[in-house]
Amino acid sequence: MPGEDRTFWGQETFCIVTGASQGIGRSFAVEFARNFAKNSVIVLLARSFRGLQATNDLIAAANPDVKVILHVMDLYSPNPSEFNKIIAEAAGDVSQFKLAVVVHNAGSLGNCSQLTSEMNDLAEWNRFMSLNLYSVTALTTEFLKIFNSGQRCLVNITSLCAIQPVRSLGYYCIGKASREMYFKTLAEEDPSLDILNYSPGPVNTGMITDLIQSVKSDDTKSMFESMKSNGTLVSLPETTAKAVEVLRKGKYKSGGRVDYFDDI
Amino acid sequence: MPGEDRTFWGQETFCIVTGASQGIGRSFAVEFARNFAKNSVIVLLARSFRGLQATNDLIAAANPDVKVILHVMDLYSPNPSEFNKIIAEAAGDVSQFKLAVVVHNAGSLGNCSQLTSEMNDLAEWNRFMSLNLYSVTALTTEFLKIFNSGQRCLVNITSLCAIQPVRSLGYYCIGKASREMYFKTLAEEDPSLDILNYSPGPVNTGMITDLIQSVKSDDTKSMFESMKSNGTLVSLPETTAKAVEVLRKGKYKSGGRVDYFDDI
Repeated sequence: MPGEDRTFWGQETFCIVTGASQGIGRSFAVEFARNFAKNSVIVLLARSFRGLQATNDLIAAANPDVKVILHVMDLYSPNPSEFNKIIAEAAGDVSQFKLAVVVHNAGSLGNCSQLTSEMNDLAEWNRFMSLNLYSVTALTTEFLKIFNSGQRCLVNITSLCAIQPVRSLGYYCIGKASREMYFKTLAEEDPSLDILNYSPGPVNTGMITDLIQSVKSDDTKSMFESMKSNGTLVSLPETTAKAVEVLRKGKYKSGGRVDYFDDI
Repeated sequence: MPGEDRTFWGQETFCIVTGASQGIGRSFAVEFARNFAKNSVIVLLARSFRGLQATNDLIAAANPDVKVILHVMDLYSPNPSEFNKIIAEAAGDVSQFKLAVVVHNAGSLGNCSQLTSEMNDLAEWNRFMSLNLYSVTALTTEFLKIFNSGQRCLVNITSLCAIQPVRSLGYYCIGKASREMYFKTLAEEDPSLDILNYSPGPVNTGMITDLIQSVKSDDTKSMFESMKSNGTLVSLPETTAKAVEVLRKGKYKSGGRVDYFDDI
């Protein structure tokens, strides 16, 4: 459970990060690992082996005492038994760890060239939700089977879009809203878990570039173009440092959300 | 767009109601039709032909000037082109109608014998979301292709669970949260639409009986058992009358939510 003056960083930690080959996933993986005690293990999942290797090299430079395990995986096709096998093999005897963490970072914008009045493609829906919701619930389920007691933290990378609709970002808003409700319900059901929905702000990553290129709504396009040209996008080091600090302080209600712009 | 002193009831109306063979769907279909002008058309969708026939008979008694069209359909397997065909055939020349309404009532509890920490069945997820989200977005899409201008109203039957997690009702909470975000985004994108997320309160229907029988959390079970034994569940006529009144007054922001217990 989160709480003030708690011990979080500096322990022997088992950690999984999804979408760890770039952007927020990579940045979190490196900075989290920097704060782990020796004999910690971090498992990185993503589609790009080259990206994972680069993240691995950054972690090795930041904290050579952390063991890094890479798995190339397409979370559009989540496989619960594969999750179980990966976690069980990487963790070994779970009692060696004082803290176990999952960072649910992988996610997609969805087809933002489509408006919500055009959402009649059921196969696209299933593909989108498989990555953005089902892979998250399945990975959490398998993680909690193996780490079934002790200090466990689930970090969900969410967005302002989980609570505020944005034109042309229907898939994204719906995916983030559903994912956040999953973690709110999980927190309600299991008070022994420490669950943080962290909204990183509009971070300057490839997702913003993709969004500007493909979004159908001119309003939404202009909003992000302005942020980009005005330099008001949040940088990766800033949002990562904030998340590290939020987790250190632990002053949030489990299942609640903390935004980059919130005072903590 | 909703607004005070608007004309809503008493017009030549085209209306579709999903899950119209029982419970809230049936009650809404009958009371809505009672308020339609002659030459109105109401299309009822559900899995049970016998249930649809009974709803048809109630509408015929309430307002014999309304044409009723029944379609047996399983919304766990939504079919966009079938939606299109049904609406196009039932509507004919759309200009004959002054108002077009969809009541998205069909939905399911999901597997409430499962906790959120056990959600690793991807086929079950897809089945659940096909009914509770994808059928809704696909039906709306096809409806808006055919009724592409004029006074159009979308009523989404939502729940307190869309905004408040409840133990053992993970699927239901996530389904309702995702569905409500869909309508919030649609309202943001198209201000010409009139969108009401109506939360009917804990209504005394078969769903509550199913819930009490199957829910895994003892807390949630006791909560609903108490409501049932204390007589604090809302009755179908009460919540239906409230919805009729909410739509008459139209004092809500399109895309917003109105709860049975709200003052209007």
